[in-house]
Amino acid sequence: MKLIIINGPNLNLLGNREPDIYGKEGFGGYLEKLRAWFPNVHIDYFQSNLEGELISKIQDTGAWVDGIVLNAGGYTHTSVALADALAAMKAPVIEVHISNIFAREDFRHRSLIGPHCTGCIAGFGLDSYRLAVQNFIHSGQKNKG
Amino acid sequence: MKLIIINGPNLNLLGNREPDIYGKEGFGGYLEKLRAWFPNVHIDYFQSNLEGELISKIQDTGAWVDGIVLNAGGYTHTSVALADALAAMKAPVIEVHISNIFAREDFRHRSLIGPHCTGCIAGFGLDSYRLAVQNFIHSGQKNKG
Amino acid sequence: MKLIIINGPNLNLLGNREPDIYGKEGFGGYLEKLRAWFPNVHIDYFQSNLEGELISKIQDTGAWVDGIVLNAGGYTHTSVALADALAAMKAPVIEVHISNIFAREDFRHRSLIGPHCTGCIAGFGLDSYRLAVQNFIHSGQKNKG
Amino acid sequence: MKLIIINGPNLNLLGNREPDIYGKEGFGGYLEKLRAWFPNVHIDYFQSNLEGELISKIQDTGAWVDGIVLNAGGYTHTSVALADALAAMKAPVIEVHISNIFAREDFRHRSLIGPHCTGCIAGFGLDSYRLAVQNFIHSGQKNKG
Amino acid sequence: MKLIIINGPNLNLLGNREPDIYGKEGFGGYLEKLRAWFPNVHIDYFQSNLEGELISKIQDTGAWVDGIVLNAGGYTHTSVALADALAAMKAPVIEVHISNIFAREDFRHRSLIGPHCTGCIAGFGLDSYRLAVQNFIHSGQKNKG
Amino acid sequence: MKLIIINGPNLNLLGNREPDIYGKEGFGGYLEKLRAWFPNVHIDYFQSNLEGELISKIQDTGAWVDGIVLNAGGYTHTSVALADALAAMKAPVIEVHISNIFAREDFRHRSLIGPHCTGCIAGFGLDSYRLAVQNFIHSGQKNKG
Amino acid sequence: MKLIIINGPNLNLLGNREPDIYGKEGFGGYLEKLRAWFPNVHIDYFQSNLEGELISKIQDTGAWVDGIVLNAGGYTHTSVALADALAAMKAPVIEVHISNIFAREDFRHRSLIGPHCTGCIAGFGLDSYRLAVQNFIHSGQKNKG
Amino acid sequence: MKLIIINGPNLNLLGNREPDIYGKEGFGGYLEKLRAWFPNVHIDYFQSNLEGELISKIQDTGAWVDGIVLNAGGYTHTSVALADALAAMKAPVIEVHISNIFAREDFRHRSLIGPHCTGCIAGFGLDSYRLAVQNFIHSGQKNKG
Amino acid sequence: MKLIIINGPNLNLLGNREPDIYGKEGFGGYLEKLRAWFPNVHIDYFQSNLEGELISKIQDTGAWVDGIVLNAGGYTHTSVALADALAAMKAPVIEVHISNIFAREDFRHRSLIGPHCTGCIAGFGLDSYRLAVQNFIHSGQKNKG
Amino acid sequence: MKLIIINGPNLNLLGNREPDIYGKEGFGGYLEKLRAWFPNVHIDYFQSNLEGELISKIQDTGAWVDGIVLNAGGYTHTSVALADALAAMKAPVIEVHISNIFAREDFRHRSLIGPHCTGCIAGFGLDSYRLAVQNFIHSGQKNKG
Amino acid sequence: MKLIIINGPNLNLLGNREPDIYGKEGFGGYLEKLRAWFPNVHIDYFQSNLEGELISKIQDTGAWVDGIVLNAGGYTHTSVALADALAAMKAPVIEVHISNIFAREDFRHRSLIGPHCTGCIAGFGLDSYRLAVQNFIHSGQKNKG
Amino acid sequence: MKLIIINGPNLNLLGNREPDIYGKEGFGGYLEKLRAWFPNVHIDYFQSNLEGELISKIQDTGAWVDGIVLNAGGYTHTSVALADALAAMKAPVIEVHISNIFAREDFRHRSLIGPHCTGCIAGFGLDSYRLAVQNFIHSGQKNKG
Repeated sequence: MKLIIINGPNLNLLGNREPDIYGKEGFGGYLEKLRAWFPNVHIDYFQSNLEGELISKIQDTGAWVDGIVLNAGGYTHTSVALADALAAMKAPVIEVHISNIFAREDFRHRSLIGPHCTGCIAGFGLDSYRLAVQNFIHSGQKNKG
Repeated sequence: MKLIIINGPNLNLLGNREPDIYGKEGFGGYLEKLRAWFPNVHIDYFQSNLEGELISKIQDTGAWVDGIVLNAGGYTHTSVALADALAAMKAPVIEVHISNIFAREDFRHRSLIGPHCTGCIAGFGLDSYRLAVQNFIHSGQKNKG
Repeated sequence: MKLIIINGPNLNLLGNREPDIYGKEGFGGYLEKLRAWFPNVHIDYFQSNLEGELISKIQDTGAWVDGIVLNAGGYTHTSVALADALAAMKAPVIEVHISNIFAREDFRHRSLIGPHCTGCIAGFGLDSYRLAVQNFIHSGQKNKG
Repeated sequence: MKLIIINGPNLNLLGNREPDIYGKEGFGGYLEKLRAWFPNVHIDYFQSNLEGELISKIQDTGAWVDGIVLNAGGYTHTSVALADALAAMKAPVIEVHISNIFAREDFRHRSLIGPHCTGCIAGFGLDSYRLAVQNFIHSGQKNKG
Repeated sequence: MKLIIINGPNLNLLGNREPDIYGKEGFGGYLEKLRAWFPNVHIDYFQSNLEGELISKIQDTGAWVDGIVLNAGGYTHTSVALADALAAMKAPVIEVHISNIFAREDFRHRSLIGPHCTGCIAGFGLDSYRLAVQNFIHSGQKNKG
Repeated sequence: MKLIIINGPNLNLLGNREPDIYGKEGFGGYLEKLRAWFPNVHIDYFQSNLEGELISKIQDTGAWVDGIVLNAGGYTHTSVALADALAAMKAPVIEVHISNIFAREDFRHRSLIGPHCTGCIAGFGLDSYRLAVQNFIHSGQKNKG
Repeated sequence: MKLIIINGPNLNLLGNREPDIYGKEGFGGYLEKLRAWFPNVHIDYFQSNLEGELISKIQDTGAWVDGIVLNAGGYTHTSVALADALAAMKAPVIEVHISNIFAREDFRHRSLIGPHCTGCIAGFGLDSYRLAVQNFIHSGQKNKG
Repeated sequence: MKLIIINGPNLNLLGNREPDIYGKEGFGGYLEKLRAWFPNVHIDYFQSNLEGELISKIQDTGAWVDGIVLNAGGYTHTSVALADALAAMKAPVIEVHISNIFAREDFRHRSLIGPHCTGCIAGFGLDSYRLAVQNFIHSGQKNKG
Repeated sequence: MKLIIINGPNLNLLGNREPDIYGKEGFGGYLEKLRAWFPNVHIDYFQSNLEGELISKIQDTGAWVDGIVLNAGGYTHTSVALADALAAMKAPVIEVHISNIFAREDFRHRSLIGPHCTGCIAGFGLDSYRLAVQNFIHSGQKNKG
Repeated sequence: MKLIIINGPNLNLLGNREPDIYGKEGFGGYLEKLRAWFPNVHIDYFQSNLEGELISKIQDTGAWVDGIVLNAGGYTHTSVALADALAAMKAPVIEVHISNIFAREDFRHRSLIGPHCTGCIAGFGLDSYRLAVQNFIHSGQKNKG
Repeated sequence: MKLIIINGPNLNLLGNREPDIYGKEGFGGYLEKLRAWFPNVHIDYFQSNLEGELISKIQDTGAWVDGIVLNAGGYTHTSVALADALAAMKAPVIEVHISNIFAREDFRHRSLIGPHCTGCIAGFGLDSYRLAVQNFIHSGQKNKG
Repeated sequence: MKLIIINGPNLNLLGNREPDIYGKEGFGGYLEKLRAWFPNVHIDYFQSNLEGELISKIQDTGAWVDGIVLNAGGYTHTSVALADALAAMKAPVIEVHISNIFAREDFRHRSLIGPHCTGCIAGFGLDSYRLAVQNFIHSGQKNKG
């Protein structure tokens, strides 16, 4: 099973950024743990602060990965273009958020990408990613593209 | 670890109710699978169609369980009283939904209980519950009441 | 033909409650008239002030009655859970109201259950129920469950 | 008893227009059935695509008919002028709709004419008209002008 | 000075229509009084229940009258087309209303035609028209078309 | 007949203030003209920039004048307290505006005081006041306090 | 004088529930104090987490008590059915809240039951109930049913 | 190929009406040019200021023309009835506007008829019509009624 | 204990102003009763129709009184400046209203000053003030400034 | 005549992306057809998924091309920055869309770039581009920069 | 250069009022510093809690000062009358705020006076005033009245 | 003291772009003036049309500069991601705008980045930047990262 984790804007700051909300662990270290927990899963990784680069990556990988774990950060709430990219893609997508976006500001309650995802996991710190990977294993989905 | 799954209105119909959206499996059978997957976790279960009975159950169990997996069904979107019950409680709560509520009607995008939950897992069919239990194990939280 | 009339909150007060709006006749007496007018139709009756009991009754009878005449009272305008119960059911439902809800306060103009009903009859006093029964006879629908 | 059925825009197309929503029967044939079902009731008929002609007809007949069965079609949702005409009239009016307008687009949920009608019957196909006539017979109202 | 009074839907009913709001005097008699009060002014008159006929009349007379006194009735609040007709016209227009529309239902507070009129006179019964004619005399405007 | 003209904030600037909108004539000179046009009417005058002073003046004169001509300026759109003062008063009030407020910014379309006035005259320059006085003469109202 | 205090959802938790907002005193002890302060008043008590049971209690006691002190908790903001029950009742009702609902979340500022109550007392901790009882004594109202 | 151009209210004024927005050319002359540019296309023409006449024309021609070029003028933004007429019709419709409605007042940005049209061409002066005809030729659509 | 009652606009009219809503008793007489009922409390009084004078009074007395009973009248719903004055003050404030503002027009349901008050008492006629004074005695608060 | 076609996010997927909505033809092939149809027009092409690169391209070419055909994809509905770039530019712009955005989700009905374009062509598949080029030829505009 | 600083409601409390937000320095002392920093500028000062007095002051000084530094406090967000006074004035105005109003409650984000000011400086404590004075010096504007 | 000025989309056009709004001076020349006026301050400069590059720059410099002067252009009103970047950063930020955004279109009145900035300076042309630098000098803030 081949998965890719795609992280949006400011997620390169994890560990430094508002630790009360996002925790103290950087994503690099967590990614190694993830790969150790799931040795039979190939987990690619991509991060960008640019909306358009996220779109391009989704277009590129959407055809061959078995699943995308997507934390679109702030673009979750504003990007029609990102939502359109997901709608055009065959691979299933799980929307993840580190914090519980439904317990924060009102503008974070609206997800433009939600309607094009399989499901949403939010609020479990970095373990939101782990649960997403576990779900891909549970469901055993393969890219049908 | 002691958990309780609390299901709200119409979830007693699972397996019969709109199978395109909610799947064909009844909750009774799935609960047995859950207990088999997690033999070290004690998993209680409660279902009611009555808002007030859900509130009473949350009040009763909130003091001693290590976590609540709550699918409040239609009350998710309308019940201030249920949200108040959660706010008054010490045990951590994970909000789950079988369908991806963010891909359905607009009125399902608003969760009144969300602000009082640890996190939200939606869209993975009955496996939303499984992921919730897994998260309680990952985090190893104990009731601090 | 087997029908059930399900009345929601405060409809047990009919005859006493705001007679300018709801009329002076109690529902018990009217039910007898209804049964006399339609001797070939079996008409069951249920009333509850509890949202969850209405849901349970709909779940129970939805599988075998040929039609439901539902006056959900105040829950008409607020209950997603009741609407979900109707969506999960096979029997056809006619929404009735004693008063013309479209000529009253704005919040009574919105019906959450409307999208899951065959049709709506409102404003004819207790005869709203009579017209609903007549329509079930006209259409000759049988439960296809 | 003298009644008039007034049909608004596009109802001259019945039988041809979107048969999934409005059915396959033309109004001419149905009117004959209605008159046969209710031989003691004089039923006039008027249809126009013009808002102003509907207003004029309501003004003309409002003084002498015992009741109006009004399907204002699209003007239901937009015409203050039509609502004003009804407010100025003595004969009772029943608002009818072939489809269940409460189960369709949001803009069809608002009826400007509703506050000036006795009641509303919607969703029963052409039998919405039949129920309306039956209600005029039940209530035995006479024009009190 | 040549003026025209243009009355919209239901104003042909004046004297009969909701006398508590609109008064007991028919417009015919009042028009005679108006002509007697202002013998030096030629006052034409037009009434229609049809939005399109009002538009056509405005187009026809807009080029040669010195002023239009317009009571557009219910179309005041809904007609973009009527507003467009006024915008295309050279003669000055005074918007009049018999009742004080600002003391009635909310939807009567919005005038689509207002932005294309010189001014508005509302709430003085039929004397709203008299004040409008007096203003045309005060200002001594002539059609500059 | 005793009338009072009450002018609100910034109307002391007339003649200087935005002459494109409000004209070039000061109110003092116009008041003399008004008194000359209507020699049989006693016309008092009051202007203040202070909301509370306008309220006090309305309270003081409301008991004995036959009518109030009120241009509340910017308070028209924001003052509940001024509206309450009018509601508590016996003398009839005509709301006047120099410019056509319905052809200006959206926030000027809402009048909080409108529901407590006999009528509204707007858009005729200073002659809005003249028309108001004429209407008081037409209607021959006397303070019935 | 016979009064009844009716408490809605989560008020059985008083003393435990969010003590920063609701205080540390349980309702049982406070009720004894109330009865001691007002020895000449018979004070009944009812609490339920179920909306429908609150409605039934109001229906049952509305005919014979001299007044109801109602803290509807979360249902204050969502229950049309409860509001309808109050509208159908003869006994006067005082709406009370322990916290100042107007200083909390926006959704707590709207009371659906307010229009059917004599008045509202909010923000004085448990003494909100005491003030309500005092007002019933001040006004000396008796059930006029 | 048989097409019809249907023009709504005030479009009979072209050439005179607000030339800054709508241009100086009358529609009669432009229609001759259109017919000359497309000699192989039969182009019918209809204009009315009456909403209902536009509806009737659409009903009449919808069954046999190969396409309709519709400029509904002000009714574009307000007419549910016109939209219903289009929904009931087989011929493809292109919505055209002379001015760029998206660069004008907000209320012109909403098109009720848009959802029932093939596409929209707006802002090219009278050449909006020419582009519409060209598109019918490009696509070679024939009435499939 | 030193208290001050501060009354806003139009409350100087009590006894005369809309007696159906506000009662027939003037405030002067009621103030004497209040002082008689609470002989151990020093009760100051201030009334003004001017928003700014109310602000100044609150600033002046906020430092030394033990409590303020504030009926801000119409400014309750519109004055950010008054709310700011309360936020800057140490003495506790009770918001009172003679009528039940929650049973009146929608714009009276919003209190800008509410978030800066201890609590709210509304709907008990002049006895709203009495209850407020009683609460200050119950709570025994002293100015901690 | 020199034109440039600028395509926004996801339009590089044409032919693959949701073919029911966007058709099966890739843009490369269509561009060749366009150049063949209009041999006298120089047609440049640019596509990017990055909002900022689209802005930069518009800045670069705006000074020398005779026209821009812009399909901004999802940025149409969200990008103030893109709209600002167009406002700062001299070359005329035609907004095109492959699908009829007015027949799709509500959020696609709002175009932020519309106010800065000559006109809009939407719903004609790839021929929307062809019509845009034809209009540049019809109007014969040259860059006046 | 002659400037005036005009401070609105509650700014007389500076140093005492909510020091976390507004700082601990009184305005009197700061004004002396300002005059010391800018010895060549004549700086007048005016403060009032009364909306109308602020309007009068603006009217009085607007004709002869070279600039106004205006902190309208709570009236910033509610006063149409104050905005009208600024619109009628020749002297340039700079809107200042001590706190960053854009980081506070939503109702503080809307400035009614903004459209009539040169610019806005907010969030720099009392130095917001200093920056405003510096800008008047930079721009060297003189009253052109 | 080390500062950086970060300019967003279209600000590279300064001097060319809509000179009526943004002035005729390019930013390059102004930057030189700024450095001359403040010889003791090191002023870095960065401009990009790409939202993501602005985010990356803020992340990179946020750790070591003493302050950021940020004109985010159109992203001010739409970018949650940019706001998140500011929230994650230690250096103080001053939001600047060349034009007075509060006197322009409504959508420019909302700043998503405002809540994460020290303050806002808008409307002073390029001197908005100068005032921002002056404030950094006044406050003498140092990066505390």
